[in-house]
Amino acid sequence: MSAIPAQFSRVAIIGAGLLGTSVAHAVRRFLPDTVIQFADQDPEAVAVLREIFPEALATTNPVDAVRGADLVVLCVPVRAMAPVAQSIAGHLQLGTVVTDVGSVKRSVITDLSAALGPDVTVIAGHPVAGSGRSGPRAGFADLFVGRFVILTPEETVDADALERLSAFWKALGAMVEIMDADEHDLVLALTSHLPHLIAYTIVGTAADFEDVSESDVMRFSAGGFRDFTRIAASDPVMWRDIFLTNKDAVLEALGRFSEDLAALQRAIRWGEGDKLEAWFTRTRTVRQGIIDIGQDTAEADFGRRGGAAGDEGDGPVLKPYAND
Amino acid sequence: MSAIPAQFSRVAIIGAGLLGTSVAHAVRRFLPDTVIQFADQDPEAVAVLREIFPEALATTNPVDAVRGADLVVLCVPVRAMAPVAQSIAGHLQLGTVVTDVGSVKRSVITDLSAALGPDVTVIAGHPVAGSGRSGPRAGFADLFVGRFVILTPEETVDADALERLSAFWKALGAMVEIMDADEHDLVLALTSHLPHLIAYTIVGTAADFEDVSESDVMRFSAGGFRDFTRIAASDPVMWRDIFLTNKDAVLEALGRFSEDLAALQRAIRWGEGDKLEAWFTRTRTVRQGIIDIGQDTAEADFGRRGGAAGDEGDGPVLKPYAND
Repeated sequence: MSAIPAQFSRVAIIGAGLLGTSVAHAVRRFLPDTVIQFADQDPEAVAVLREIFPEALATTNPVDAVRGADLVVLCVPVRAMAPVAQSIAGHLQLGTVVTDVGSVKRSVITDLSAALGPDVTVIAGHPVAGSGRSGPRAGFADLFVGRFVILTPEETVDADALERLSAFWKALGAMVEIMDADEHDLVLALTSHLPHLIAYTIVGTAADFEDVSESDVMRFSAGGFRDFTRIAASDPVMWRDIFLTNKDAVLEALGRFSEDLAALQRAIRWGEGDKLEAWFTRTRTVRQGIIDIGQDTAEADFGRRGGAAGDEGDGPVLKPYAND
Repeated sequence: MSAIPAQFSRVAIIGAGLLGTSVAHAVRRFLPDTVIQFADQDPEAVAVLREIFPEALATTNPVDAVRGADLVVLCVPVRAMAPVAQSIAGHLQLGTVVTDVGSVKRSVITDLSAALGPDVTVIAGHPVAGSGRSGPRAGFADLFVGRFVILTPEETVDADALERLSAFWKALGAMVEIMDADEHDLVLALTSHLPHLIAYTIVGTAADFEDVSESDVMRFSAGGFRDFTRIAASDPVMWRDIFLTNKDAVLEALGRFSEDLAALQRAIRWGEGDKLEAWFTRTRTVRQGIIDIGQDTAEADFGRRGGAAGDEGDGPVLKPYAND
């Protein structure tokens, strides 16, 4: 066993959305000795931060937020990483670790390295966790508990810095996974970006269908559509940036999806029931695999409505599901 | 107000899956005076029925199950409706109402009318409710509470029979909606059949991706993919039949979806961020509409794991969700 890596003493969080404020809530709960310094470009968000985190610095100026910080966590949309990094370049103390929470990693590494130069330790990261909410009131301390945080360090990264950053996320309850940035971008294109693109598409398609009133689409959404609308309600700017910065991997995944969909479409048109049944049977095993490794529960949610509509409490609530 | 319609006194349920056994559980709870007579072609399912519903008749012979029944509920896959109806034709008492729970309505009406002849009252129906589970142990009494049951009567149907069937479903907690069969098939193609086809496709696409180990797909499924796997674990035979019998509406919906997806794909390839953001913003309003009419709760489920993996209790459990 190596010695316990030194904790960060002062964490700058740039961007006060779901992820940024969740990091702050989690630090307050799990690392109470760590000082928090917040920056957000929106003065209204800063006002909310001062209310929720009275013990923390909160400012619209990222230069003030990073002053004296030994860890900087960039929690802004992927394409905002470069301008934010440019604004703090030259204001970081020696040895500061800069990380992020973006859903695309290669473009972020390129942008941060270019803006910050070779003397700053950049270790890009991605907590695979979220909720449908956004904004400075969306965060909560448990967001990372039991969730994967993927770190994508370059090969030349300082080992001690990587160990300290890993320990930071583990302290917040996460499981840390080290991965190559390109591999990350391909895996997430499949498991997250493509599903979001599909969900966004289908919800728009249904809303446009002139023979079906929007009301009917909503009223009978329990048949599967509702799950897509939940995904398709995610933050538009964040997702625009993800698709633009992970273009190649998304287009690759999308090409394969389209081929497979065309094959199933043809099977439907020509009445090839055996092909359909074989495909639908195979996909069941993927579901079972996810349950087996503990990333979801068995299907034990029986189409129930779990809470009053409009429930916005911070605790987990029951979620309805129906599938036919 | 008209008089309260006469209750059915003896209900035959053909098919002991999630829907069939849920009807039985709900009848036992909400209409305890009604006699239940079950048939399922699988002797093992019949044995389970005798254990769970000791007060009910359970048999492999549908002719025995419909004897003396004034309501017959067919709870078999859509393409099994015709052979089942043929087997009970001529064994129904005068005035018996025959209904079903299939997800496609036009083909079922055609099949049942052809098999049963003009003297039998057929009122096709579709409870828009379900769960990821199937089999004779999957049912529960609350499945229909607060859910829509769509009835698609032909114009010539007996009004009293329709009123009695509506009252039956309302007694089980459902909201009854009368709709034209073709309209139903188009609406459900959009809100249920297309989402299922897409989910089945994408789960297979991801599982096939040779550069990504299946394990990574599963481990990082919290990013959106997991929601698709839940849908894609639905019963393969049931869904094969749905796509084959609602072919035209599904292909129509699929054609529009493919056009929209191609447009978004092109926007990604050419870096048209404004188009992407506008589309993603519009889909949020559909989500809000569903919440507003009470068919789902607001997004207040924060990526939490709600229960131990493998939890198969009959009550509703917390369901995890994460979206980036």
